[in-house]
Amino acid sequence: MSHNTFGHLFRVTTWGESHGPALGCVIDGCPPGLALTPEWIQGFLDKRRPGTSRFVTQRQEPDAVKILSGVFDDDRTGGPVTTGTPISLMIENTDQRSRDYSEIRDRYRPGHADFSYDAKYGVRDYRGGGRSSARETAARVAAGAVARCVLGGVTLRGAVVQIGPHAVDRSKWDWDSVEQNPFWCPDRDMAAQWESFLDETRKAGSSAGAIVEVHASSVPAGWGAPVYGKLDAELAGAMMSINAVKGVEIGAGFAAAAFSGEQNADEMRAGNDGVRFLSNHNGGVAGGISTGQDVVVRLAVKPTSSILNEVKSITRDGEDVDVRTKGRHDPCVGIRAVPVAEAMMACVLADAKLRHRGQTGR
Amino acid sequence: MSHNTFGHLFRVTTWGESHGPALGCVIDGCPPGLALTPEWIQGFLDKRRPGTSRFVTQRQEPDAVKILSGVFDDDRTGGPVTTGTPISLMIENTDQRSRDYSEIRDRYRPGHADFSYDAKYGVRDYRGGGRSSARETAARVAAGAVARCVLGGVTLRGAVVQIGPHAVDRSKWDWDSVEQNPFWCPDRDMAAQWESFLDETRKAGSSAGAIVEVHASSVPAGWGAPVYGKLDAELAGAMMSINAVKGVEIGAGFAAAAFSGEQNADEMRAGNDGVRFLSNHNGGVAGGISTGQDVVVRLAVKPTSSILNEVKSITRDGEDVDVRTKGRHDPCVGIRAVPVAEAMMACVLADAKLRHRGQTGR
Amino acid sequence: MSHNTFGHLFRVTTWGESHGPALGCVIDGCPPGLALTPEWIQGFLDKRRPGTSRFVTQRQEPDAVKILSGVFDDDRTGGPVTTGTPISLMIENTDQRSRDYSEIRDRYRPGHADFSYDAKYGVRDYRGGGRSSARETAARVAAGAVARCVLGGVTLRGAVVQIGPHAVDRSKWDWDSVEQNPFWCPDRDMAAQWESFLDETRKAGSSAGAIVEVHASSVPAGWGAPVYGKLDAELAGAMMSINAVKGVEIGAGFAAAAFSGEQNADEMRAGNDGVRFLSNHNGGVAGGISTGQDVVVRLAVKPTSSILNEVKSITRDGEDVDVRTKGRHDPCVGIRAVPVAEAMMACVLADAKLRHRGQTGR
Amino acid sequence: MSHNTFGHLFRVTTWGESHGPALGCVIDGCPPGLALTPEWIQGFLDKRRPGTSRFVTQRQEPDAVKILSGVFDDDRTGGPVTTGTPISLMIENTDQRSRDYSEIRDRYRPGHADFSYDAKYGVRDYRGGGRSSARETAARVAAGAVARCVLGGVTLRGAVVQIGPHAVDRSKWDWDSVEQNPFWCPDRDMAAQWESFLDETRKAGSSAGAIVEVHASSVPAGWGAPVYGKLDAELAGAMMSINAVKGVEIGAGFAAAAFSGEQNADEMRAGNDGVRFLSNHNGGVAGGISTGQDVVVRLAVKPTSSILNEVKSITRDGEDVDVRTKGRHDPCVGIRAVPVAEAMMACVLADAKLRHRGQTGR
Repeated sequence: MSHNTFGHLFRVTTWGESHGPALGCVIDGCPPGLALTPEWIQGFLDKRRPGTSRFVTQRQEPDAVKILSGVFDDDRTGGPVTTGTPISLMIENTDQRSRDYSEIRDRYRPGHADFSYDAKYGVRDYRGGGRSSARETAARVAAGAVARCVLGGVTLRGAVVQIGPHAVDRSKWDWDSVEQNPFWCPDRDMAAQWESFLDETRKAGSSAGAIVEVHASSVPAGWGAPVYGKLDAELAGAMMSINAVKGVEIGAGFAAAAFSGEQNADEMRAGNDGVRFLSNHNGGVAGGISTGQDVVVRLAVKPTSSILNEVKSITRDGEDVDVRTKGRHDPCVGIRAVPVAEAMMACVLADAKLRHRGQTGR
Repeated sequence: MSHNTFGHLFRVTTWGESHGPALGCVIDGCPPGLALTPEWIQGFLDKRRPGTSRFVTQRQEPDAVKILSGVFDDDRTGGPVTTGTPISLMIENTDQRSRDYSEIRDRYRPGHADFSYDAKYGVRDYRGGGRSSARETAARVAAGAVARCVLGGVTLRGAVVQIGPHAVDRSKWDWDSVEQNPFWCPDRDMAAQWESFLDETRKAGSSAGAIVEVHASSVPAGWGAPVYGKLDAELAGAMMSINAVKGVEIGAGFAAAAFSGEQNADEMRAGNDGVRFLSNHNGGVAGGISTGQDVVVRLAVKPTSSILNEVKSITRDGEDVDVRTKGRHDPCVGIRAVPVAEAMMACVLADAKLRHRGQTGR
Repeated sequence: MSHNTFGHLFRVTTWGESHGPALGCVIDGCPPGLALTPEWIQGFLDKRRPGTSRFVTQRQEPDAVKILSGVFDDDRTGGPVTTGTPISLMIENTDQRSRDYSEIRDRYRPGHADFSYDAKYGVRDYRGGGRSSARETAARVAAGAVARCVLGGVTLRGAVVQIGPHAVDRSKWDWDSVEQNPFWCPDRDMAAQWESFLDETRKAGSSAGAIVEVHASSVPAGWGAPVYGKLDAELAGAMMSINAVKGVEIGAGFAAAAFSGEQNADEMRAGNDGVRFLSNHNGGVAGGISTGQDVVVRLAVKPTSSILNEVKSITRDGEDVDVRTKGRHDPCVGIRAVPVAEAMMACVLADAKLRHRGQTGR
Repeated sequence: MSHNTFGHLFRVTTWGESHGPALGCVIDGCPPGLALTPEWIQGFLDKRRPGTSRFVTQRQEPDAVKILSGVFDDDRTGGPVTTGTPISLMIENTDQRSRDYSEIRDRYRPGHADFSYDAKYGVRDYRGGGRSSARETAARVAAGAVARCVLGGVTLRGAVVQIGPHAVDRSKWDWDSVEQNPFWCPDRDMAAQWESFLDETRKAGSSAGAIVEVHASSVPAGWGAPVYGKLDAELAGAMMSINAVKGVEIGAGFAAAAFSGEQNADEMRAGNDGVRFLSNHNGGVAGGISTGQDVVVRLAVKPTSSILNEVKSITRDGEDVDVRTKGRHDPCVGIRAVPVAEAMMACVLADAKLRHRGQTGR
């Protein structure tokens, strides 16, 4: 992962600012011959799109993706397929309200990258957060849609497991429920509770954090490359690179610290087709290599930094100032992080698959 | 991070198996003209060395480091200095007990990389875990010692903040205490409690997990490179690549998920020399770039997988078998993870410093 | 250099096919605060643009560049400046004649990448050569324009020194002459000779090769990084990656093989500001590091493979066939390689500058 | 290629100075399960070893290689095999004559990297040239021996085709002859001529340049990755990174510049198993991808810079001085470049094979 590129063989480079003309990504190293249409990518972008419920930002962006290269269609290919050359995807920014940015230009918003970007670069595109805006994640989602084509049989599913202090009851987990509420919540009862909690949060001019969990099923044993390219290390870096994420864990994660050796051991028994694990505290990864169990990752998303309530800050010139952020913001950015985290998981796994195949021929 | 290399400008490649003739690393891209002696590196290796108390493995390894290249000494340099060429460091393995490995050869130890390495490579050096052994971390510590030379004024300090279910009381935090007990514990009272807890754990033939915390102070604002090379993303990948680590968090981490927007905001006020932050929930990183506050990372270490108690497993040939691991093992590998985590932090920061300087000239 | 990306700190990723909707590049790692306008980039694109004389292809492409990200303009920046975030440049393909591609679809054109792309990918965008078309070099030229901003005082100049068997007389070398003829020829007399030679070549339905030479002046001593990142190794890779290039040499190049040690030695004497070299057979690079002399690179460009005359080939299905390439082609692609080679030199040097600064702080 | 590492999936990092305790390399990403012994590697090192004839340096170095990691041997593997983990190879420096280095310390030798290393780093290990010494190429040869294991059926052969102004007669080319003279000369008659030429050169206190040619046969069509990772671009970079190399060409190379389009076209006809090319001016690479023909590369090696005859130079302090280099030097370094160039070809091809397999599964 190098500045705005991640991946080794399946490499994604993203570009674009929140209020520039467009944003997009270039995917290099994609295998040839995979069916790929704009509609396929659009389906995933629509999951992330703003304005879909009152619990996410009201910014209206169709987020329509264009494929500019790397895909070819003629009577021989039987529809558009990847050619193995770079796939360039572009999403035009259409809802760039022309407004007065002088406030955000001169004042550092706490929790945002305003201060640190200025410290690093000495100049920044402050309109809507510029490069540090979560709009960049649209490009990740588009890339993830391509990665899914590479992954074939692997299934990726994400859910929100906690909003604010309210965590789901895992005994009620139902993957079907996830698509049936605006929170990607696998616990129907908790979804109702979150609804009132977030309504209150919004009315209070505040915001809430969340925990997101992503599962990848049918990942073959053997993906990942010790020791610095461990599958879990790559996943941790990928997830932590998502805006507002402050923590990542694999399998039992932080809870493992309180376990005894016996509790934590994922015991094995002979199964019908190879090994059968009796538990999955390791989250599908041992020694940095997939075991064939579900790969399970969780990420902590901090509360949206843009809040209506006043917070203390300074101006660019070092004067004290109090800041309140008006405008259209997600009361809980963790919700829209679900398709983004799925996409990052897809990209990491696609890259791991190609690298494994490169080294071992399997 | 690419298989056995990490870093971009300050690049570390490690090599070696637990029971091979030696292990080591090559550090490429180190700035020239930095004073560097074997003694300096040895000091950090000694912190990680086995056999120092009854709470760590009794394997006896002097872990004596040799500098094979990249350092030059004559009357003009005034002592050994780096030359800007690759620094090759080697540690010979001296305590390779000749013993019967047939048990470990044929049986997969739960929680270890035995099964997944075989799934990936079809062959593995099973002696002492081979490449997946935590002995590899000696090379990381050596590299970290070199990284500290690059970092100049930055201070790095690590501590254990939880062992098993027993967490330190943060109000009693005392950095001086950390060096005065065998656990790197910043809470004197808790250290005493851990002593009896670990004695019991060991007697019970079991093991315990831990949480490690590392602080870097005096990191200038501006290090880190959005969006995939974010400083916290690099740290997350680096920490998760350490053996047995299952979770990483920055600043408030997972706790941030339960915060409100106001609670989480790191408010700012004009300070004597620039900004003064009123809290550090962000852990010194905003938008992937350092803010000048302490960079704070925590990592969850699972309980040692090698335990005396019997656990269910299978053989290489797919037969059910019960495994108990005799031999010299750390009851809590989290303790010896402290110098390793410090080293990874040092390497990530050194790389970030050079990359920032490369791009911005500052 | 990794598939469609080159550079380490100044990283350029290009994308796009000859007859797709657009082509472009993403430049990552550019220093912030550099003045950059579309007009600046356009000036270099216009040098490479087709249709400028009868000696280059008659394809009519305005090659108008758009800056989609990475540049910001407000009253504080005093005009558009780079922000340090990815610079996305796009050139739309406007002259994609709708025509019948069945011939090129089914027949491999000798000297082109038709056969090898099919062997690699099993599928290819054959329209105008797809990804293997020299149109891709427009993106290189755009990137090179940005690299020049990074290089500040360095001067880059390219020329054609041979077309077919006709080489310039170096005693008549005049840089002013280069801009005054359609061949970038530094020898006025030879330019006239090339004119009639190429007219004949074109009439004969054939094509001609060429040798291009690029000089970079005012490159400080110290750029380049031994041993695999040597400045000349990076230049060789960069130049050989240009379409139709079959050879690269630095300084005296192949001629050095016939020299004696004395003839080849670049002797030194004390100069006014440091060293004064008495010759430059090394082409400004010693041990892979710049010496402060002019960096001099030459590249051999093979004759355009698309010729009107019939050549033997096979179809995709393995049947013998005779191929002649109608359409608009450069009789000598070497001419338009000049701005491309300059651009590659600029990118390599910009990257070397940033890497040197990163490692040494100078 | 990044400082001291080259390759993407098959990655080689070298380290070591001419007069340090040792030199070596770490090979990461090697496929598992390949038979590999020190004896196999030693065979290639012996081809490069100094002191084998009066036409190469008289330095006496056994160059005995040790395998420190990445290879495992037990009754199940049937001999030592690679495990897929980093292979660390070390060669100890045994002939480090203790002598007075003050002359070389204070005076820049023309043609060497003395001046440029000082300009870059401000400090250098001047003993025997330190890191810029051709001793580094021993590590390349060792890595190349491992790469050959990856390549399986590919045959690599190198030869010297010109020494000083004396080129071989290609009509007399005989691969058998190459091993039968101390020059790797494929033209028996020319070998005799070179013998007297080099004897004179040596007596005159001078040195001679050379041209080396390497062929790789049975390379499948499809290796290489456009556009910056073109197979020929990678080869050009790899060859130019070898000490004293000043030019690289593929296939017809610079001669192609004088060809007409028809002369240069590699015409095709249906063959027994696929395509049959009627010539190989492209050197086995089209559009950066292998065609299945022999891959043919030539490199120009400048005359040894260390000569007995006096040349003008300056001291480190900028004073004029005349330098003559006593000691044991190759009168023509091009001879010992043959196994080095073969090794670089092997490494580039091994990497290309793995990357191709990763992307396409073939």
